[in-house]
Amino acid sequence: MSENLQQRLFAELDQLVLIDPHTHINPHRPASETLADILGYHYYTELSHSAGLSRALIEAPNLAPKEKVGRLVEALGHIDNTAQLSWLLEAASKLFGIDLERLDASNWEQLYDAAQAKFSAPNWEQEVLQLSKLEAVFLTNDFDDPLAGFDTQRYVPCLRTDELVFHFSKATVRQRLMQCAGVELRTLEDVGQAITQRFEHFTAHGVRACAISLPPFFKPTCVSQVAAQQAFERVLREGEAASADDKQTLGYWVFWQLAKNCVTFSLPFDLMIGVNRAVYPGGVFQGQDLYDSRVSLIQYAELFNAFPEVTFPISVLASVTNQELVSYAWIFPNVVCNGHWWYSNTPSFISRDLHARLEAVPRNKIIGYYSDMYKLEFALPKFAMFKRCLANVLASHFVIGMGWSESRALELGRQVLRGNVESIFYR
Amino acid sequence: MSENLQQRLFAELDQLVLIDPHTHINPHRPASETLADILGYHYYTELSHSAGLSRALIEAPNLAPKEKVGRLVEALGHIDNTAQLSWLLEAASKLFGIDLERLDASNWEQLYDAAQAKFSAPNWEQEVLQLSKLEAVFLTNDFDDPLAGFDTQRYVPCLRTDELVFHFSKATVRQRLMQCAGVELRTLEDVGQAITQRFEHFTAHGVRACAISLPPFFKPTCVSQVAAQQAFERVLREGEAASADDKQTLGYWVFWQLAKNCVTFSLPFDLMIGVNRAVYPGGVFQGQDLYDSRVSLIQYAELFNAFPEVTFPISVLASVTNQELVSYAWIFPNVVCNGHWWYSNTPSFISRDLHARLEAVPRNKIIGYYSDMYKLEFALPKFAMFKRCLANVLASHFVIGMGWSESRALELGRQVLRGNVESIFYR
Amino acid sequence: MSENLQQRLFAELDQLVLIDPHTHINPHRPASETLADILGYHYYTELSHSAGLSRALIEAPNLAPKEKVGRLVEALGHIDNTAQLSWLLEAASKLFGIDLERLDASNWEQLYDAAQAKFSAPNWEQEVLQLSKLEAVFLTNDFDDPLAGFDTQRYVPCLRTDELVFHFSKATVRQRLMQCAGVELRTLEDVGQAITQRFEHFTAHGVRACAISLPPFFKPTCVSQVAAQQAFERVLREGEAASADDKQTLGYWVFWQLAKNCVTFSLPFDLMIGVNRAVYPGGVFQGQDLYDSRVSLIQYAELFNAFPEVTFPISVLASVTNQELVSYAWIFPNVVCNGHWWYSNTPSFISRDLHARLEAVPRNKIIGYYSDMYKLEFALPKFAMFKRCLANVLASHFVIGMGWSESRALELGRQVLRGNVESIFYR
Repeated sequence: MSENLQQRLFAELDQLVLIDPHTHINPHRPASETLADILGYHYYTELSHSAGLSRALIEAPNLAPKEKVGRLVEALGHIDNTAQLSWLLEAASKLFGIDLERLDASNWEQLYDAAQAKFSAPNWEQEVLQLSKLEAVFLTNDFDDPLAGFDTQRYVPCLRTDELVFHFSKATVRQRLMQCAGVELRTLEDVGQAITQRFEHFTAHGVRACAISLPPFFKPTCVSQVAAQQAFERVLREGEAASADDKQTLGYWVFWQLAKNCVTFSLPFDLMIGVNRAVYPGGVFQGQDLYDSRVSLIQYAELFNAFPEVTFPISVLASVTNQELVSYAWIFPNVVCNGHWWYSNTPSFISRDLHARLEAVPRNKIIGYYSDMYKLEFALPKFAMFKRCLANVLASHFVIGMGWSESRALELGRQVLRGNVESIFYR
Repeated sequence: MSENLQQRLFAELDQLVLIDPHTHINPHRPASETLADILGYHYYTELSHSAGLSRALIEAPNLAPKEKVGRLVEALGHIDNTAQLSWLLEAASKLFGIDLERLDASNWEQLYDAAQAKFSAPNWEQEVLQLSKLEAVFLTNDFDDPLAGFDTQRYVPCLRTDELVFHFSKATVRQRLMQCAGVELRTLEDVGQAITQRFEHFTAHGVRACAISLPPFFKPTCVSQVAAQQAFERVLREGEAASADDKQTLGYWVFWQLAKNCVTFSLPFDLMIGVNRAVYPGGVFQGQDLYDSRVSLIQYAELFNAFPEVTFPISVLASVTNQELVSYAWIFPNVVCNGHWWYSNTPSFISRDLHARLEAVPRNKIIGYYSDMYKLEFALPKFAMFKRCLANVLASHFVIGMGWSESRALELGRQVLRGNVESIFYR
Repeated sequence: MSENLQQRLFAELDQLVLIDPHTHINPHRPASETLADILGYHYYTELSHSAGLSRALIEAPNLAPKEKVGRLVEALGHIDNTAQLSWLLEAASKLFGIDLERLDASNWEQLYDAAQAKFSAPNWEQEVLQLSKLEAVFLTNDFDDPLAGFDTQRYVPCLRTDELVFHFSKATVRQRLMQCAGVELRTLEDVGQAITQRFEHFTAHGVRACAISLPPFFKPTCVSQVAAQQAFERVLREGEAASADDKQTLGYWVFWQLAKNCVTFSLPFDLMIGVNRAVYPGGVFQGQDLYDSRVSLIQYAELFNAFPEVTFPISVLASVTNQELVSYAWIFPNVVCNGHWWYSNTPSFISRDLHARLEAVPRNKIIGYYSDMYKLEFALPKFAMFKRCLANVLASHFVIGMGWSESRALELGRQVLRGNVESIFYR
């Protein structure tokens, strides 16, 4: 009975038209062009590599898409237990019409060709959006993105700011900022103006969020103007050779400016907390980052206190930080739970973390899910995975445990899946 | 079948008469006087505030109780998913006879009036104790509480010692200690005597525990008499302006004295580990504290080793510390698991933490639950929440998983709910 | 239905013949000789001690086995809720033919005698291996173990290296190394040679793994030869009085040599991460170690990067580190999940940790379980506990959740239980 209940709830939730509030979609090429775009997703390359496939084989230069898929398929038998591979099989079934129990040497070409027929159809982008019930998709835009040549209602700009905070000592980053903002960077004031100019540019193109990913040791603080000025001068002189202290001081100052601009421009500031970059430099492309789970939201207490007007949708990388996120969202009006990120984006962690959020955080402060996808074809299976977890928590905790009606549970589910995306990012 | 089993176990556990081993009840006004005492519980003010209600609205001076409730009700729609709000609805049903699916503008006055009729009855205090099956309620008493004017069998004194350890540099704290203990505080020996005098006073009034809440960075150690003496002298001279080091040295010394007195007076020492105070100074009353979950019980290893005669009932604030608590209680004879505290007091954390305790800690070392309540009306719904979690673990792990009979599982449940409170606090 | 499904899966998994990839079996006396060998297992002595039994009573010198069992039985009523005690009752039933609901004063002698009859039979060792479906059992051998006088196919040598890394400053350790390796230890090169000689000796006797347990603060790094040489000279001069820094430098150097030898000799290097030794010096024998759960696998990033040819089967002590293990095994080809260690070896932690592994780590990189036993009689009940958890995850996540056939789920279960032990340790 509980399984039927869960399926009924899933079926209802699955009717909802969605806004995906965080992706890495390229709005100029949003859909896949060959199956290599799908199997080349870092989840498959890194898991296959981890299972024993040589990096040289899958990252060979000029590898033809079909050849690349063929090589990756060799390793899939080792990862067919993973939730990540199940996304691919669900996409194959729901988007390409190919039902497979396993993907292997015997059937991958069949899938390859069926998918290619879809990709080659003139309106595949529309079709996959429709099949996936996607109304809008948030992007991850470099600060110097011109944001031109696409429909910003459908592909919604978000200002990604990692480079400004963590790589300001690189001449190329400063050069790009000067160029796009049309401001020389001689003083700290110039930097402030350039950043503000970027917010103006993004605002003019319908930006819905400022966003950044942060390492576990990040502990932002309000740096004095004098300290920031001195650090800025040394970073300007010494570039990447500047001291770690100077880079950090300047980074904290830039971060604080971003938050100030979020006030001015009424933007939520997405914080994705906890990733260490390039922990495994020998890993495949985008498969080198890991983390130190010893991080605390108390590192952000000064920020949350300093900017009560800014909403901070927070993603945490490791499930051990989820209870802190629940507690901070329960206390701070400007802290909001945001999705299930990366290494926490598998069913057991989602179910556990979601349960803790839904039982203790105000319902208007929980953004259920974002796909984090690079290609449109992943929204459907990733959201489906989340909706199954959501249906499970709604069934077991709310309907069975709390005696709620199914319609009341679905109301909560819809708010978490869609309503809060609107109320938080579209006000 | 499993749901029926769980309900049968709950129904049996629900018959038990309880002793609540930690509350903040004021024995002179134990029951609520208006519904504002219920809705004014920090869980509702902080969640409503977090959901968007202005602090000024609910903390306005001279706000009439009914007006306050009316304002809070506005925000309850945003928190009706929370376990915390479910306590209120369960209290409304079981104590005030009002069954509501939701509490909103349409029905709150009905509840207000029904509750008022109860509160105004001459014997409401007795009635709520009886309805809640409460035999005794442990208090949280300031060190200078006269402990007079109430039945200490029913309202059981516990010596709360946060101020002595963390605020000894405040002149008012020292003044109060001198006054109540009748001892001048000129030397460290004087402080020791004053503390011991307080234990004598509390013992004379039936104290059952010494208790303290501790920040995550607390790492108590046995400070030398010389170091403590020097710190004491500087704290005496400089007051709150004394260095953090001196305050800490003196705090550790005072803490050690408390433990010594627990030996002398055969008292358990409740440690509530992990809270950072005033992380969100802009929060509502009692809704400003949060935590850094990076804490370890190894910080208390020296203490546990130094005082084998003292039982330490331990509460941990975050569920990530629960496994350490399980392991330390499994190894140290004087470490006992105590309840599910504050941010870990919601069903998913309770169930998970309780399961881990019940499968690995000796059964005589698990104190199931305390309500932590400020008003008597919360014991019933909070204990009911716990008993549902307990019934769930007993059903799934012990009856179904281990093949235990229901009566054997209930025996364990009763020990955890009541038996261990007696054996640990009343020996 | 789900319970029946789980039982069917368990029954199938229970047919499998096993290799136990980590134990503390003494190959010269692998089976118990009296019930005191069983009840003397540290799990029972430490839990009984924690529950109130005096250490003096159970560690009295010259205590007769039967007397010791009688004393321990006194305390078992306090720990009959624990998973640990359930191992004993399952062994009693499956190995000794005695079915008991509880073990107490009324029936322990019956069990004692029945067990004794088994132990005294000439072929008990064979019988227990057969009843437990054990084909081979990995050992934990001191570096100077002669590895003679037993069948190394059945009792498989593993080189345990804690002493070399952590106690090299002890004259006795150096003495033993010189003696067994036949090398004077005058220079660092001598130490390197002695270590390599030990790998040669172990390899000649069929070693299958190098292994070590590590404290939470261990953060191995490649120490320069100069720094190591200086530290070595001072440690040689000052012995245990050498500075903590010198001991650590030398320890890291030795650790790095071990990893290098694992390359040379193609051995997996088992890392058991997170234990603090002697946290409770007043505890019973082997019941004094605990942990600080604030540890991260990022401490091993340099190691994993430096030795891509070495497979590192990793055990983590606390469940809070499990997600890091999952993520690191998902990214690093040479990181493998290994079993459920010690304080995480109870059903709720196993089920949770295993679920997270099975849904996100390549299936060829998960070593399901090892018993960690000191006496053969514990393999059966400990593996049975694990197999129940495994059947549970296979049933709920794979068969019900993912729609897998039972046979496909069993294939995964068998790979995790047995297949990966072969492919990782026997290549």
